[in-house]
Amino acid sequence: MNSPVLLVSCADQRGLVHAITGVLWRADVNIVSNQEFVDGESRRFFMRTEFDGEPDCARLEAEVRAVLPAGADVQARLPAPKRVAILVSKEHHCLADLLVRNAYRELHAEVVVVAGNHDVLRPLAEKFNVPFVHADSANRSREAHEAELLRLLEPFQPELLVLAKYMRVLSPGFVTRWPNRMLNIHHSFLPAFAGAKPYHQAFQRGVKVIGATAHLVTDQLDQGPIIVQQVIPVDHTHAPQHLVQAGRDVEQMVLSRALRLVLEDRVLLCGNRTIIFD
Amino acid sequence: MNSPVLLVSCADQRGLVHAITGVLWRADVNIVSNQEFVDGESRRFFMRTEFDGEPDCARLEAEVRAVLPAGADVQARLPAPKRVAILVSKEHHCLADLLVRNAYRELHAEVVVVAGNHDVLRPLAEKFNVPFVHADSANRSREAHEAELLRLLEPFQPELLVLAKYMRVLSPGFVTRWPNRMLNIHHSFLPAFAGAKPYHQAFQRGVKVIGATAHLVTDQLDQGPIIVQQVIPVDHTHAPQHLVQAGRDVEQMVLSRALRLVLEDRVLLCGNRTIIFD
Amino acid sequence: MNSPVLLVSCADQRGLVHAITGVLWRADVNIVSNQEFVDGESRRFFMRTEFDGEPDCARLEAEVRAVLPAGADVQARLPAPKRVAILVSKEHHCLADLLVRNAYRELHAEVVVVAGNHDVLRPLAEKFNVPFVHADSANRSREAHEAELLRLLEPFQPELLVLAKYMRVLSPGFVTRWPNRMLNIHHSFLPAFAGAKPYHQAFQRGVKVIGATAHLVTDQLDQGPIIVQQVIPVDHTHAPQHLVQAGRDVEQMVLSRALRLVLEDRVLLCGNRTIIFD
Amino acid sequence: MNSPVLLVSCADQRGLVHAITGVLWRADVNIVSNQEFVDGESRRFFMRTEFDGEPDCARLEAEVRAVLPAGADVQARLPAPKRVAILVSKEHHCLADLLVRNAYRELHAEVVVVAGNHDVLRPLAEKFNVPFVHADSANRSREAHEAELLRLLEPFQPELLVLAKYMRVLSPGFVTRWPNRMLNIHHSFLPAFAGAKPYHQAFQRGVKVIGATAHLVTDQLDQGPIIVQQVIPVDHTHAPQHLVQAGRDVEQMVLSRALRLVLEDRVLLCGNRTIIFD
Repeated sequence: MNSPVLLVSCADQRGLVHAITGVLWRADVNIVSNQEFVDGESRRFFMRTEFDGEPDCARLEAEVRAVLPAGADVQARLPAPKRVAILVSKEHHCLADLLVRNAYRELHAEVVVVAGNHDVLRPLAEKFNVPFVHADSANRSREAHEAELLRLLEPFQPELLVLAKYMRVLSPGFVTRWPNRMLNIHHSFLPAFAGAKPYHQAFQRGVKVIGATAHLVTDQLDQGPIIVQQVIPVDHTHAPQHLVQAGRDVEQMVLSRALRLVLEDRVLLCGNRTIIFD
Repeated sequence: MNSPVLLVSCADQRGLVHAITGVLWRADVNIVSNQEFVDGESRRFFMRTEFDGEPDCARLEAEVRAVLPAGADVQARLPAPKRVAILVSKEHHCLADLLVRNAYRELHAEVVVVAGNHDVLRPLAEKFNVPFVHADSANRSREAHEAELLRLLEPFQPELLVLAKYMRVLSPGFVTRWPNRMLNIHHSFLPAFAGAKPYHQAFQRGVKVIGATAHLVTDQLDQGPIIVQQVIPVDHTHAPQHLVQAGRDVEQMVLSRALRLVLEDRVLLCGNRTIIFD
Repeated sequence: MNSPVLLVSCADQRGLVHAITGVLWRADVNIVSNQEFVDGESRRFFMRTEFDGEPDCARLEAEVRAVLPAGADVQARLPAPKRVAILVSKEHHCLADLLVRNAYRELHAEVVVVAGNHDVLRPLAEKFNVPFVHADSANRSREAHEAELLRLLEPFQPELLVLAKYMRVLSPGFVTRWPNRMLNIHHSFLPAFAGAKPYHQAFQRGVKVIGATAHLVTDQLDQGPIIVQQVIPVDHTHAPQHLVQAGRDVEQMVLSRALRLVLEDRVLLCGNRTIIFD
Repeated sequence: MNSPVLLVSCADQRGLVHAITGVLWRADVNIVSNQEFVDGESRRFFMRTEFDGEPDCARLEAEVRAVLPAGADVQARLPAPKRVAILVSKEHHCLADLLVRNAYRELHAEVVVVAGNHDVLRPLAEKFNVPFVHADSANRSREAHEAELLRLLEPFQPELLVLAKYMRVLSPGFVTRWPNRMLNIHHSFLPAFAGAKPYHQAFQRGVKVIGATAHLVTDQLDQGPIIVQQVIPVDHTHAPQHLVQAGRDVEQMVLSRALRLVLEDRVLLCGNRTIIFD
């Protein structure tokens, strides 16, 4: 991942690949990889191109846009690691996994801050030399809490927010500050087992698989575009607390995979669905 | 699978294994395999024992029951293949898989009849020399249709009913005739994508896994004890019709696995959950 | 799958996508989907394009070849179902699965003949109205047997051969008649458990997964390009005969998936590796 | 996991379960869970029993042994966390995962020391307040190196050794100090891709799955009893370095799962195979 990337989505029409690759050809860059997809239902065209060189992104975007239908979404991005903030509550498993990967430069990112509505994971963040900020949610209105959270995040200028088992619902006003740049993880039982203690509900139902879903956050709570879903098998010998542990293992796996896809600019949106160019 | 099986479930107390194996010891049979489980929540004891010999089942059940707490459920079963009826509508995939396995004696069963509320799968059943009966559901009340279905099944005396993509809801009165001996298969999206065209709904939601659930039928529609759940990965390149095909593949796999577990007497019930001794 | 397909592989150089899509643009066809890949190691370019219309394939191939580096491999194919022959010995599971899929038009193919070196699967083929030919391998040299097999296959003009648990080694001379158009399935333990009774060897080793590999046949026995590999979990309760049954289930799943990929022209070759555009 | 455990293996004969549970009954302990298995091939009996109370383990072992055939292996263990040493070289992924789980008390163990033949992972161990010792292997004979390693481990009295990507072959003399108490992890390609750079070899072969195997170390290098094997899918877009990363993810998952099974006394041996009571 050290190539610039061009992301395009627009209404489909004949000759789009030819037109876009023509712009790249004239810009004298070399295509490293190129993936397209036309969604059969919406008749929308998607393309992700990795290429060599150090382009003027704004200019390249303008030139590509000029050969596309009106309303095209075009983004050219240099391969700079993204600035990531991780939001947490009390559970450590997803945070620990991301901090290890960050410490060993396995993420195409820089984790710039960890923010908690509880103060319990501070030692874990500080172990890995990542600043921890505490925006206490107790005895505060949601508005006051989010304002405090924004104030604390502001100096770190995060481009992407990862909700690593952050157990507070964020308001649409907060979410729209990181449009399609906020990632969440939760168990995959929704809407079956909504509310508290989902693993205990799943136990009562006698489920045979436990899953996790990573998705982009929109103002529709837990209904945003899905990036990764995976499951692991469980059986009757798993007491509720074992289901919780199994759930943690799959959440951690799914979140780090989804984050990699987002950080490498491999996720495009088609309405509320994702197009993943992996 | 050519051993008699003893199935026990009862309230847990000290010495149950010792007591039950004592009965078997005195009955002069040899234990081939033995599995127990105590459910931590209900404090209920479950045991499945395969053993040698040709016991008098009624007598053995009585002797085991005599050493157990009141209300124990005890069943001793000879390894006779079970008589199975398969109920179908128009989709062939689960039926074809079961008919092939039946023809090559891979199921511990004899498929004695296929019953359809449509007549389209008759040629498939007859290819494998299994009788097909047609209980037309068109222009009939549910009561009249179920009465006709019962009349047609009656001569075949099925011990177990497999709903292999049977698309009619059966009344509680019908279901109670085969208590915990009726197996169903459906997609795993419930309750998310209830109703018609679930795969199209799943496509709109952009799911990344497709799953199937096999369960015992109770009078709670699609809420009976789960026996097997499995999923397969899908992605944005899967149009709705591809999701349907992927769904068929996983349904077929899950149903034949669940049926094997039931036919081998490996499924016990703990309230609405299953204990699977595989 | 009702679109013509263009398959290209050649040495990578700048502007290939632009050049090829330019030919398609001038041929007045509409691209339905387009996938490319550049192999980083060999610096080789691969592309698969589905498009609308009814092109003159020979002419299109020539025009595409004209804009590519020397030595390019270019194939344009109409969406005609391929004529498939299935070779079998005594095991029925893969054959039965393919015959069901063929009967219900789920394969983009027509199964024109089943050929066995034993006569045992004739009833299964004939159940599905597919001709069965018997090329007895007993008491015959390999040359004589293969000559007989070729004589029997000849009237059916198969374009693709599927070895569905065909337990004879085919000579290089036979294999080269269907270059990269012969598909085989075997267990995935090689080279660990070569030779007879691989599942018994796997049992002795105490393996925890059972897998199957579908690959194209080359003159390197069982070393041809891999198309699909999948595994399923097993444990100590699986006796060797249960491993064999588990192996059948995964073989059947893997072979039908690999066959679909080949039939839909989704498999390209990069030396001894496959590029799969799924 | 706060119950004492009884592990039994011996030649099978009638009445073993009855006899053993009789001893427990007379010892006035309550069975929490009980699993047995008779290996059909060796006719060997295995049993794992969790029970309540604080037994005199030596006495219980003697009493159980008294009712069993000669040569029985009987072990009663209190639920004390085991003292674990982790051996490492340069790769961090397995170590980091285990240190996180240790820090949050998710392992039924206490990681007492990390030992490296290189000094690079010291900061990671120390971050989690676990002592790190460096037994340099450069410019030393194997004997001298192992002697130094033993000297450094000795004060920590480890009961179990985990080779978390430890890249040195250990001599039989070293291995026999922790008989069946030394756990190793490696890729699952053996024997196909032995030697250096296995993932590069796997890439050249075009494999479609990457797997890892956790096993007990015996003096047969990498041939000891397998505890866990799992795989993840890969495809042609995975360059060798991506296969390496995918391999790390699956190694980490497999090792922590195998370690849990060993720490909870769920692994028994049947020759070179494992019986896993999960």
